[in-house]
Order: sequence, then structure tokens, then C-alpha cells
Amino acid sequence: MNEFETISRYFKPLTQGRPEALGLLDDAAVLNIPEDHELAVTTDMLVAGVHFAADALPQHIAHKSLRVNLSDLAAMGAKPLCYQLAIAFPEKPSAAWLATFTQALQEDQKTFGIFCSGGDTTRTPGPLTISITALGIVPKGQAVKRSGGRAGDVLILSGPVGDAWLGLQCHFAQDDKTLLYFTEALYKPVPRLDWAAHLRTHAHAAIDVSDGLIADTAHLARASGCSAQIKTTPSFFSAAGFEMIKTGQIDERALLTGGDDYQIVAAVPPAALVHFPDAIIIGQLMEGAPGDIKVQGLAGETLQFDSLGWVHF
Amino acid sequence: MNEFETISRYFKPLTQGRPEALGLLDDAAVLNIPEDHELAVTTDMLVAGVHFAADALPQHIAHKSLRVNLSDLAAMGAKPLCYQLAIAFPEKPSAAWLATFTQALQEDQKTFGIFCSGGDTTRTPGPLTISITALGIVPKGQAVKRSGGRAGDVLILSGPVGDAWLGLQCHFAQDDKTLLYFTEALYKPVPRLDWAAHLRTHAHAAIDVSDGLIADTAHLARASGCSAQIKTTPSFFSAAGFEMIKTGQIDERALLTGGDDYQIVAAVPPAALVHFPDAIIIGQLMEGAPGDIKVQGLAGETLQFDSLGWVHF
Repeated sequence: MNEFETISRYFKPLTQGRPEALGLLDDAAVLNIPEDHELAVTTDMLVAGVHFAADALPQHIAHKSLRVNLSDLAAMGAKPLCYQLAIAFPEKPSAAWLATFTQALQEDQKTFGIFCSGGDTTRTPGPLTISITALGIVPKGQAVKRSGGRAGDVLILSGPVGDAWLGLQCHFAQDDKTLLYFTEALYKPVPRLDWAAHLRTHAHAAIDVSDGLIADTAHLARASGCSAQIKTTPSFFSAAGFEMIKTGQIDERALLTGGDDYQIVAAVPPAALVHFPDAIIIGQLMEGAPGDIKVQGLAGETLQFDSLGWVHF
Repeated sequence: MNEFETISRYFKPLTQGRPEALGLLDDAAVLNIPEDHELAVTTDMLVAGVHFAADALPQHIAHKSLRVNLSDLAAMGAKPLCYQLAIAFPEKPSAAWLATFTQALQEDQKTFGIFCSGGDTTRTPGPLTISITALGIVPKGQAVKRSGGRAGDVLILSGPVGDAWLGLQCHFAQDDKTLLYFTEALYKPVPRLDWAAHLRTHAHAAIDVSDGLIADTAHLARASGCSAQIKTTPSFFSAAGFEMIKTGQIDERALLTGGDDYQIVAAVPPAALVHFPDAIIIGQLMEGAPGDIKVQGLAGETLQFDSLGWVHF
């Protein structure tokens, strides 16, 4: 099967017959953006051996590559519309790999109400590399930015952090016993699109947690011209994660700074908390040096960090 | 300089202060699509050692990566708006490399009236990999597709083909004498955005020549449900390319099937030819097996091809 047959058999079905994708036969997709809406655009590139294990399962690679992009749209308060998929293959992909990979994309497309609008396939002498650009729509003027936070805003978190980092450690340690649970967190993060509409209406600022909770909260605080204070509680972590902290197997700072969680941190005025019943309150924005962040640990002490989160280089 | 400082110093200026890009500080760009327009979206991924030489100059890599995408927009009749830039670096890029690379992007942004709306930077254990998604706008319903051609349409070409392929051969042969001329064709193709408006108004179908003239014309014919006939003339080639054919240094078929030209092939009704005064007439669409293509060589004989053009795998 050559490149064109591969595209026709495995990738064309991802367009779900949507006329906008023109059957992947044209030079570009042509999309209609509803009136009174703006277009939100985000891009994430994932590399085998960097963002996922070189031997990761094709369905895990598919879920992760797509969902990290959808998480960015969720943080902006946008509704996902479609995505462009570019893949560089280190070798000619097997039919089984392609079938599993595209089947996982199909599942996510159904879950999140999106389709593949186009992309590119090519070869690389290096590792499998996937670049996705996700497109979403947001009512005009309602996109939620990192920069809108104000001193006095409450910082809220959409769900526990650290499980993805634990998934990575289990993978490194080849610990099959706990791997299964944390692998789900690492490879199948849930983009918090259920928060998008609430963020548009009630939040001053939001960011998704990709670099790590502390680093991303600092990003939001800096963009908003505020300092931030975080008070760690057991609710920051999953039951399994907290158990590992409690039993001394892991330092809470590892889970506070580990990346890849894809929860959302938002800055909301105290009166808006009622609209986020499932939120974990993690701290507040304050007047102070932009981006300065003070973190209180579980035992009440001030935590010191060598690094606040993930930096690629 | 770490990742965030690199983004701030080298990539943020590419946004040209446009509010849509949010200073590259947010999770997504937010773009306004003018009323009565649709969005055209295209993605090309380029890999060192595959799409450009591993030792290609940073300005060549920048020009090529951006322009191949703009060429796709031109073929759709779209006007470029902005682009998302994803790069995986094999090592920490030097300040000099980054400065030259982004300066070349700035030049092209000025030439083509676009800005960088966002993207991603990461590391790879493999070769330098660049994925660009270009966004353009086109008046509603006026996008030019590959599939609109009709039997009787004249096939026209926007400029000579084969020079990019010759550039690649010169590079392989380390032939510095002729390298300079053909390198320009290989690394700094000119997206035919000057044709976009004419295509919208007067063409039935169009495609940009990336895989090779014969292959891409066959793509257009197949999508249009027609067969095609091409009659090769000296005007298909640059003076330098034709000289190499005439002197027996190269087979005309190599230039007819070599990729990376980024000219446009369009199918237009005969009466519309007057609107394309600089076009090279290359043949016509006919009733027949979709995608069937018959090519007459310079000497009038029917040419046979082992392969019509480039296939990645």
C-alpha cells in the first residue's frame, strides 16, 4: 500500500465525509466559521521518546496527541471544531498500527464532536513525530486568556494533578502493577471541555496544566500581573497519588511540578465559585511581583522548588 | 537561554504584536474571520534529510517551510492570513541559527502580508522537523478545488517546472557552479498568490505542483473525473533547464516528474485564457478514464513513465 492508498484507507475516514475536508484530496480544507464567533487555533507537536514512550501503544499516541490540543481549546473557553494532523513515520507503518491509531482518533472524534480536516503524512529518519493543530470556535470577545486574572481572584483547579507524572515513573520503572491506572492519566488525559462554557462566563483567566501545576499557575499569575499563593491540600491529588505521598514513596513537590495533567487552573472572583461545584480551591492571586508564587505544603511549611515545571530546552 | 526566553526573543516578534497571537503567551490564538469568507487551512511537515538537506541554511529552511504552505493556499484561491509554526529541534538551537531563521520568516511575512499566530517548540532525538499550518481566507463558496475541471478545459501552468529538481541534483553532486541558480528554485519557491484571485473568478479547478507536474495534473484530472493530455513544449522549462535537455544532460521526463516546483496547474475554459496572460498552455482535460494521462514529449513521441511523481512511502 503506498502513501495515497494509506491516506485513502486510513485517514480519509477521519474526515467523516465532511465536505469541509474535501476528501483529503485538495490543497486545503475550507471551513465555515459561524457568525459572531472567533476561531481559536492551537498547535502541539509530540515526539516519540520525548512526549510519549518510543514503544507506546498506537491508541495511546493517538489519544494523547489529540487531547493535549483539545485541552488548550478548553482553557480558552472554545468549542472544538476540527483538527489538522501531520505525521512523520520512521518506517512504513503497518496496517495494524494504522488501524489502531486511526480507530482511537475516531473514538475521540465521536467523544468530542470533531473531525479531521486535513494534514500531511511523510517519512523521517528520526522518531515518530506528530503535530496537531486544533481549531475551535468561541463567541466573539469571550475567549478566556491567561492575562485576565486580578488580585483577590480565587485560583481553582479542575481535578487532581500528578497522576500523569506517576504514570511516567511507573513506565520508567517497568512497574506493571500500578502502571495501568497511571497510564490512563498519562496517555488518555481528559480535556476539560465541560468547563469551557463556565470559563467564558465566569472566569477572569485560565490555563491548562501541561508544564506542571506550579509552573502553569505562575504563567497565569505573570500574564495577569499578579503574584500567587497556593495552599496544598490532599484534594490536589488522586487518592492513589496522595497515598504515595502519605507513605513517603513520593515527595509532594514531584506531583505539584510534574507535567502532562491537562486539568485547568482558573482565576475566578469569589462570587463565581458557585458555578464550579467540582473545583478544587488551590489558592489566590494577589498584588505582588508578577509571576511570584508562594506554595505552602501539606504540612503547612513553605515549599522550595529547584524547578517549577517542565522546560524542553 | 531557556525555552521560554527563546520563544520570547525569537518567536514572539514573528507575531508582529498582533493581538490575535496574544503574545504567544496563551493556549491558543484567537482569530477573526471576516464575514462572507471561509477559512482555508493547510498543513505541511518538513523533515531535515527528507524535504531539505540536513545542512541546509536556516533561511532556506524557513522560506521553504512557509512557502510550500502558502502555495497550497494560492491553489485554493485563498488569501493568506497567518500560520502556526511547530518545530522540533535536534539540539539546542544557536542564537545565530534562530536569528537567521526567524529573520527569513519575517521577510516572508512582510512579502506575503501574514503573521505568526502561534505554535510549539520542542526537542527531538531525530532530525530538525518543522510543521506549519497556514490559514487563509476565501470569499464564501469561491474556493478553487481540484475537482471542478471539465472535459474541454485547457490545462495551464503558472511557470516553468524542473528547476527545483535540478537544484536537488546539484546539491547531491556538490556542483557549486550551477547550484546557486537552482537552489533558489529549490529553497525559495514563489507561491503564486498573484494567481489566487484570477483562479477564484475564472478557473474550474487548480492544484499546486508539489509532487511533480505529471503526477499533480493526474491528481486534478482524477478528482475532476476526466482524463488529461499534455503536450510538452520548451516553455514548460526554464531556459537553463531546457538547455540541459537540449544538450542531453538530462531527460525531459525527470523535469516533468520532479517535485517541489510550487507552480500552479489550473483547468480553465478556453474563453478564460485571456485572464491568464502569463500562463503556459500545457494541454487539456478530456472525457476518459479519470486520472488517465497521456504525455507527448518535446519530439512529439508519447512518453512512458516509471513513476509519475513523488511518493513518500
